Formats: sequence, C-alpha cells, structure tokens
Amino acid sequence: MADNDKGGLEGIVVARSRMCSIDGQNGVLIYGGYDVKELAKASNYEETAYLLLRGELPSREQYDEFDGRLKRARFNHSKEMSDVVDALAARGAAPMEMLRTAVSTDSFDDPLKDDNSEDANFAKTIGLIGRIPVIIARYTRRRRGLEPVDADPELSHAANFLWMLHGEKPSDHAVKTFDTALILHADHEMNASTFTARVIASTLSDLHSAIVGAIGALKGPLHGGANEQVMLVLEELHASGKKPADAVREKLERKERIMGFGHRVYKTYDPRAMILKEMARDLAVEHPGEEYLFELSEETEQVVTHEKKLYPNVDFYSASTYHYLGIPTDVFTTIFAMSRVVGWAAHVIEQHNDNRLIRPSSEYVGPPPRAYVEIAER
Amino acid sequence: MADNDKGGLEGIVVARSRMCSIDGQNGVLIYGGYDVKELAKASNYEETAYLLLRGELPSREQYDEFDGRLKRARFNHSKEMSDVVDALAARGAAPMEMLRTAVSTDSFDDPLKDDNSEDANFAKTIGLIGRIPVIIARYTRRRRGLEPVDADPELSHAANFLWMLHGEKPSDHAVKTFDTALILHADHEMNASTFTARVIASTLSDLHSAIVGAIGALKGPLHGGANEQVMLVLEELHASGKKPADAVREKLERKERIMGFGHRVYKTYDPRAMILKEMARDLAVEHPGEEYLFELSEETEQVVTHEKKLYPNVDFYSASTYHYLGIPTDVFTTIFAMSRVVGWAAHVIEQHNDNRLIRPSSEYVGPPPRAYVEIAER
Repeated sequence: MADNDKGGLEGIVVARSRMCSIDGQNGVLIYGGYDVKELAKASNYEETAYLLLRGELPSREQYDEFDGRLKRARFNHSKEMSDVVDALAARGAAPMEMLRTAVSTDSFDDPLKDDNSEDANFAKTIGLIGRIPVIIARYTRRRRGLEPVDADPELSHAANFLWMLHGEKPSDHAVKTFDTALILHADHEMNASTFTARVIASTLSDLHSAIVGAIGALKGPLHGGANEQVMLVLEELHASGKKPADAVREKLERKERIMGFGHRVYKTYDPRAMILKEMARDLAVEHPGEEYLFELSEETEQVVTHEKKLYPNVDFYSASTYHYLGIPTDVFTTIFAMSRVVGWAAHVIEQHNDNRLIRPSSEYVGPPPRAYVEIAER
Repeated sequence: MADNDKGGLEGIVVARSRMCSIDGQNGVLIYGGYDVKELAKASNYEETAYLLLRGELPSREQYDEFDGRLKRARFNHSKEMSDVVDALAARGAAPMEMLRTAVSTDSFDDPLKDDNSEDANFAKTIGLIGRIPVIIARYTRRRRGLEPVDADPELSHAANFLWMLHGEKPSDHAVKTFDTALILHADHEMNASTFTARVIASTLSDLHSAIVGAIGALKGPLHGGANEQVMLVLEELHASGKKPADAVREKLERKERIMGFGHRVYKTYDPRAMILKEMARDLAVEHPGEEYLFELSEETEQVVTHEKKLYPNVDFYSASTYHYLGIPTDVFTTIFAMSRVVGWAAHVIEQHNDNRLIRPSSEYVGPPPRAYVEIAER
C-alpha cells in the first residue's frame, strides 16, 4: 500500500477545509483562525457554531437571528419525533442507537431534505443543532420514567440542555462548564466521523444521511465512544479497592488499553484535555463524596503518561466532567454528538459546495483468477 | 493537497482486500478469483454472498447450512420490525430513508450487537441479508395499501423477493434475471458506500452502524441513487415526444449530466453493464408496449458514447431491467442495497479483523490566527 504506508490514511490529506487547524506538535487547536483556548474562555457554543458554519463570528444582529432560529428549532420538533423518541426509549434502544435512528427519521417531513444548497443545508443544520438536545434529554428522562421537560426560550443552548435533562435550573458554574465542553467538541479537523460525513456527502447524498453515518462512526470506542469507556474504567479502578497507581500499572501490564490517552495528531498535551481537566478539578470541589473521581483521573494520567508516554485526549477528562454535571455514563457519547453535529454539518456544506466523489481504491490480495467449479465437484 | 492531487482520493489505495479486483482498462471484475461473468452465468446470489464473506465457494453442506440460516432470517424479523416498517410506510418515508431507519432499528434486540468478532459479524450479516428484502417488500406493499406477503421457504433469495413484492410466483426467466442482477451488485472494491462502511468500522463501531452509514452513501445520485435517476431521464425522454437521439443531444448541449455513464475505475465497457444490457433486451420482448424503454436506452447509449466517449455503468441498464421486473422506480436504489449489503459486511469483517483507525488529515485554508473580538465590537 504505497499510498498509505502507515495504514489508516495517517497523514494523508484528503480535503482542504477552512474550519479547523491542529498543530499537533505544539498542542494548538484553531477554529476559523481563533485559538480554541480563547473561544473556551470568551465565546459560547452558539457563537462558535455560527463561526464554523459561516466562517466569521456573528455580529450582534446575526447572533440574535441565529439564536432565535436555534430556539425555535427546539420547539418545532414534531409530535412524530416525540413519539419516535418515546418508542425508542420504550424499546430499550441504547443511546447511540437511539440517536442514529431518531436523526434518521428527522428528514422525513423536511421539504428541504434533498436540497444540497448551502441555504438548505444551513437551515437543516439549525434544525438538528436545536433538536438533538431535545431528543437526548427526552429519551434520558423517559428511560427513567420521568415526564419530558420542555425547552425554555430564556436559556442558552448549554443551560437549556441541563434544564431539559434535570428539570432544575442549573448553576452558572455548571452552565459555563457545559458550554465550554460543547465548544471544545464542536469540530476537530478530519476525524473519522467527520470524514464519514464527507464521504457520504460526496455522493451528493443529503445532510441527514451524512449525519446519521457520522453518529455511527462516533459510536466506536476508538472515537467518541471512548468517553463512556473512560468512565467505566474509572469506576472499575475505584471498585477494585486497590491503590489507583497499582491498579493502573496492573492493567497496563496485562496489555489492557486505557481509553482516553494518545491521539493520531497530537504528540503533546491535547489543549482540550487541559481545559477539561481544570473544569473537572473545579467541579470535584462541589461534589463532596465524589472528589475521588477527579483524583483517580489525575493519578491514572500520571501513571499512563509516565509508563506509556501518552497524554490525555479530549475524552479523558470529559468523563469526570460529564459525570459531575449529572449526565448518565451511557449517554456521554450522545453529548459529544450534540456538539459535533455542527462540525459535521459545516464539513458537509463545504463538501457539497465544491464536490468531487470520494472514491479511493484497494489493493487486491485475494486468490488469483480461477475457473468456476460446480457445487457437486467442490 | 500533494497526497491527493486529482481530488476525491482517485487512485489512492486505502486498504488491502481479498474480495474484489477491477481491471478498469480491460473491463474485468473479479470476486475472490472468479470472473463476475462466469458467476453471473453459473452461480447464484446465495453462493456469491458466501464467497464474498468466506473467501471460497461453499461445499454442498456449507451451502445448505448458509441457505437454511438465510431462510430462517427471513422469518425471524420481529413484530417490532414489522411495526417499524408499517409506521415508516404510513409516515411517507422515502425508500432509502425508510431502509436507513429500519436497518438502524435492527440492532436493538440483537445480543451480538456490540460483538465485532468474525462469527458475530457473520451471524448479523445473515440476518441483514435475509431481512432487508422482507423490509423492502413489506414497505412497498404497505405504501400501496396491500397486505404484506410472507416469505416462502421453498424459494431462492431472488425468487422470494419477487414473490414477496408481487404476491405472484415469478417466472423462471424473471428469477434468473433478478438473481444475476443481485450477483452483479454484490461488491465493487472501494466504492464510496463500502469505504464509508470501512471508515465507520475502523472506529470499532458495530456492523449495523457501518451498514446504516453505507445506505446513506449509496443514496447519493453519484452512487447508487443513479439507477433511479436513469429511469427518470428515460421517462422524460419518452415523454418529450422527440426523436430520442435529438432529445439526448439537446440535453448534452444544455450541459445536463445523463446519469448511468462513466465510472471512476472503468475506462472501457463496465462488464456488469454488458450483462444487464442483454438481460434488459430479453425482458423487453416479454413486455409488449414497453419495448420502447430498451430501445430508448440503447439509442441514448449510442449518442452518449459517441458524443462524450463515456460507456454505460452498472446503473444504466439496471433501470430498464428493474422496471421490466415490476419494481417501482423510487425503490430501485434499495434493490442495489439489498444486494450490496453483503459486500459492505464482508468489508466490515475484513476491517474489524485487522483494524487501524481510518483518520486522515485536511489542509487548513481558513483565516490566519486572529484575536477574539467581543460581540459589541464586531
């Protein structure tokens, strides 16, 4: 495979894109020219989403219009969508199966469904950004036997999700933390789910098909599914009753992979992990009796970094952060999708606007040409 | 983009695979060492599916076991799946939206859903090959207000689908034609939907997620969606009342793309198109009053090949073939999926058995680094 010596298309440039740049040597992540560290501090998810979709931070007027459309999207989910989500919860669909299926039904009644123009894709994206949190919160409450909570038009994107999930007004600290986590997950260059979305869009298939495929890719434990795996490992380490450093070393000796470390592109500390780590540290203080979760995460990091020379990635400290925010472990990866949908959509728009079918080749390594033999003679 | 000069990953080798080899210069397509022309003549879909999944044509014993499992899969669709399909038909989901959604629900109750071992993937694949035709036939009949027809365990895969669709025993000629069409669509190297399935599988996501993504990619008019587009163009040409050659030339002069011609890999006649063309010719004779459809196809081919130096691909003569078999135009692409599911699954198995995350890069072409500006100052 001369074209792809390392395998997995590592380092192979497959597209030009204006959204996102990663400096993997120095641990710098840029969205549309802005350092994600600055956006995490000063911006919010709505603004960041607009930046990714439109290429510029919005003016006050643009912001208000975009935010208004997002807020309306939270309410214009149909009775059909509510019924679909309730049915999926009742049937016991796992969270990512549920989201894959629910988003697949979202196109049915959309008059723009087969329109790949930028305006139509933008409108469909606003619908998905607005509705996906409604879907996740409704499903999570229904599974617990609780009534769904309606969106509150007074609340921001981040605050509204926590409100719909818990049915209580979240603290300013929880909102700022969750909003920052959403900013940090919004896009990340040519990751596997984004690449999936672009390959699907390159057949001139529609935005919904691309997003449904991307959700399926994100589900894998080598991608977004890792945040759930991190939490399960932390719980396992805690339950073992051993000294954390010993328990982690034992796992490494048994060649078990500890999720949430290492990255195809970052060869240093992932800037997103650095921010999430400090947020998890701050949240730990507010959760008496659960401080161990952050401490355990930090000890795990020390051992893995020392033994394997691997740094934490975005998934590692999202686990404790999401847990402290009251999000159930098996819903973690849907939270990643709830943010990343904007990155996927921005890439679909970019692909549709300047498209060439993505159709690579493979090297045949099967049997040489041979003649057909009737079944009786095999 | 030094790594991908032509764009669209043209000619870039992304994987080794034992399933399929294309000689694009000479128009030869090989499945597991066997020329597809020989398989089309002598084999059937069940055998070909086994070959793609297992690497060898089955012995009599292996065939009987595989065929028995396929037949049972047609019946073990749950009441839940029947309800899902009925609901999708009632809601007016378009055929590929319906299939994407129905297959997404197929994993819910599968105890093997997150098992990526070859045995589990093989078992899940048999389930999907068996159930997808049941789903398509049930949906198509429900849309027409007809009662679903149960699978007949006496019938082959191809015959059973025509039976479930029409509720009449199909002729031997119709069965052989449809079976051959299924063989010809079963796999095709690193096409966009197969590549989608492999990217999704490379995150160690599950088989169903990969197939759902692949269905979304197949839907696009630059991929499987082309067969439906071909039929719509043929109908438009017929309705124009003009001499076909003139009408085609006018379309070409208007720079309209005529689907079903040209291929990323074949630089000569697609061997699948050659076989489909002869089958469409034979079927035309049996459809008095509709012979024009084949004649029109052939005249279109002559003009496009002469004017654009492009040969028909697999989609061009599948359109008339499927029409003569009584398949509604908007269901054509689901018929492609019904066959290709085995190719997708074989590639997922290959990917899972020797995996590396498919995670390429992109070239940043957005604004240079810039400082964040507060909204009031934008």
